[in-house]
Amino acid sequence: MSSTRYERGWEKLKEIDGEAGERVIANLKDIAPDLARYTIEFPFGDVYCRPGLDVKSREIATVAALTALGNAAPQLKVHINAALNVGCTRTEIVEVIIQMAVYAGFPAALNGISAAREIFRARDEKGQS
Amino acid sequence: MSSTRYERGWEKLKEIDGEAGERVIANLKDIAPDLARYTIEFPFGDVYCRPGLDVKSREIATVAALTALGNAAPQLKVHINAALNVGCTRTEIVEVIIQMAVYAGFPAALNGISAAREIFRARDEKGQS
Amino acid sequence: MSSTRYERGWEKLKEIDGEAGERVIANLKDIAPDLARYTIEFPFGDVYCRPGLDVKSREIATVAALTALGNAAPQLKVHINAALNVGCTRTEIVEVIIQMAVYAGFPAALNGISAAREIFRARDEKGQS
Amino acid sequence: MSSTRYERGWEKLKEIDGEAGERVIANLKDIAPDLARYTIEFPFGDVYCRPGLDVKSREIATVAALTALGNAAPQLKVHINAALNVGCTRTEIVEVIIQMAVYAGFPAALNGISAAREIFRARDEKGQS
Amino acid sequence: MSSTRYERGWEKLKEIDGEAGERVIANLKDIAPDLARYTIEFPFGDVYCRPGLDVKSREIATVAALTALGNAAPQLKVHINAALNVGCTRTEIVEVIIQMAVYAGFPAALNGISAAREIFRARDEKGQS
Amino acid sequence: MSSTRYERGWEKLKEIDGEAGERVIANLKDIAPDLARYTIEFPFGDVYCRPGLDVKSREIATVAALTALGNAAPQLKVHINAALNVGCTRTEIVEVIIQMAVYAGFPAALNGISAAREIFRARDEKGQS
Repeated sequence: MSSTRYERGWEKLKEIDGEAGERVIANLKDIAPDLARYTIEFPFGDVYCRPGLDVKSREIATVAALTALGNAAPQLKVHINAALNVGCTRTEIVEVIIQMAVYAGFPAALNGISAAREIFRARDEKGQS
Repeated sequence: MSSTRYERGWEKLKEIDGEAGERVIANLKDIAPDLARYTIEFPFGDVYCRPGLDVKSREIATVAALTALGNAAPQLKVHINAALNVGCTRTEIVEVIIQMAVYAGFPAALNGISAAREIFRARDEKGQS
Repeated sequence: MSSTRYERGWEKLKEIDGEAGERVIANLKDIAPDLARYTIEFPFGDVYCRPGLDVKSREIATVAALTALGNAAPQLKVHINAALNVGCTRTEIVEVIIQMAVYAGFPAALNGISAAREIFRARDEKGQS
Repeated sequence: MSSTRYERGWEKLKEIDGEAGERVIANLKDIAPDLARYTIEFPFGDVYCRPGLDVKSREIATVAALTALGNAAPQLKVHINAALNVGCTRTEIVEVIIQMAVYAGFPAALNGISAAREIFRARDEKGQS
Repeated sequence: MSSTRYERGWEKLKEIDGEAGERVIANLKDIAPDLARYTIEFPFGDVYCRPGLDVKSREIATVAALTALGNAAPQLKVHINAALNVGCTRTEIVEVIIQMAVYAGFPAALNGISAAREIFRARDEKGQS
Repeated sequence: MSSTRYERGWEKLKEIDGEAGERVIANLKDIAPDLARYTIEFPFGDVYCRPGLDVKSREIATVAALTALGNAAPQLKVHINAALNVGCTRTEIVEVIIQMAVYAGFPAALNGISAAREIFRARDEKGQS
């Protein structure tokens, strides 16, 4: 049922993205509530719940892609946070971003590191790993 | 020493990318031999040799990024092959590519699957997993 | 129900993309059947069925975006066909593509025109408008 | 005559983009006055004046392309405004942006909605539709 | 006068792009003749005729940009040819492309070298430098 | 020797990018010191030190590419500064950026001019050309 995709996706989104993800959804409620629903249902209710790839690897893939694309800073920050939430180390995230210098150029990697620094500092302030 | 980066990189490239990687290098020898050298030294001699992220995760990151960028089909194919060479399953690769529908759109994911199909078939013919 | 999204999406896909869309789905069945299902459910079962924007405008938006991105030629061709299927004129499609010279540069527009020429010729051979 | 393209383009730019467009031109006057002139002459004097596609459809195409490209936030905002100026509804603009989740990924659509929210609020303050 | 931009642009296009450029224009004549005209008038009649930057530097800028964007192979080939036509050496072109590994990643540079190889061979066959 | 690439790169980076480049490196020292080292060694120690293309042409290529990509504003600003440091005139930089309207669209060129304006003003305040 559609409600199952939504409920499953909402749980997954909270588990992975935490408060940052909930804020994204809340911000959509005023002018694009259906995009909020789709964001819960398709990425989280369908894709992140799939077997066949562990969630740590999924976040590595997402951090890599968003660093390489270089035009989605808010979402990259959400997913650096998410990667740490699901058990990636800061070192692993930095390694993924450095590797993107090879595939998308040094500016993409440098801007990825800026995003990581911001998230790492925010987590330091909250005493998070 | 510079020769060490080259030697280490050349071993790594052969281990990861196999024959497809060697062909890329051979093709550069005529008009851009120094780009061949840089390709061995920086991505493979420097980056892929780094500790802090296992090589399977590195290939997941690369397949994700190249699928999302969508403008580097030859390199995506080399790295789908490479991912299988270092122990990723076909299922894991397909999962990474499907996930890119979320971050880079359905056309990027559909074209990524086309690249995967081509590599999977070529490996079937050689009896490779 | 999930089956409703699928059924609704499948009807919509056939109505809009015609045979070309069915071939895309058929091609996914071997190695990524779930991506076939998502392609039917999310773009067609969810998005293209929405009220609030007529389907002609939806295809104009898609042709514009795929021309501008410039890295998804197969999908651009499917949607030039789709735009004609839902009532856009060839002139309207050419106008959208020319306009992309402004927003994504002349190469994007020139490559968009190449895609349009190919589709227009294929339709000429079938006696389609 | 060249002056005709300029005059025609300047009228078109004011009609479509309004004050926001005039500010873009004014800002170029100091260091790149010829780019100001080209922006008036080619996009507005040549392209937007063409018959064959109505101006509402032209703005839908532009909002779609700029949302999908994801690297031109100032111009996307100008054209969300422009789309409303020429008769698109807020709903139609939101629909175009949601649809871009399919072709360019959810981050592109989410950032497009952020741009729309900013423009809608600014127009609310001025009592504009 | 508009005809002056066209005539000036046509001469410039033939001088810089040679036969390859003329073919691009000829190919547009059937379905998008006005895009042919704009391609002559704006890039060549307006931009390439400007003082303030020599034509060799203009072609270096274009080869760099098209290599970095990575989604416009036909136009990159035209401009590698054009760069050689206006006095760039093959070495200079290869250097520009190698440098793009830094700013757009190794895949962009590798694909740029493939384009250069194709053009260099075609010129070898014609006995051109 | 590896130390030679680093030393040579560090001198080149200071010569070309000046203080802005040194700040980029300093900012990396906390969380990605090896990316700082790679940025010195590969782009500056390897690529910018190569014969075959003068450094002014190299900066023209970089400004063109970063303007066209449109997703690396901090690096574009560093390289507009760098281009001026190595002898490009402000006019030449503005010409390169205007030309990018042809290859990457007007938004890319307009945003490139915004970056140039910011750098030109900062240099005015320091009495730099």
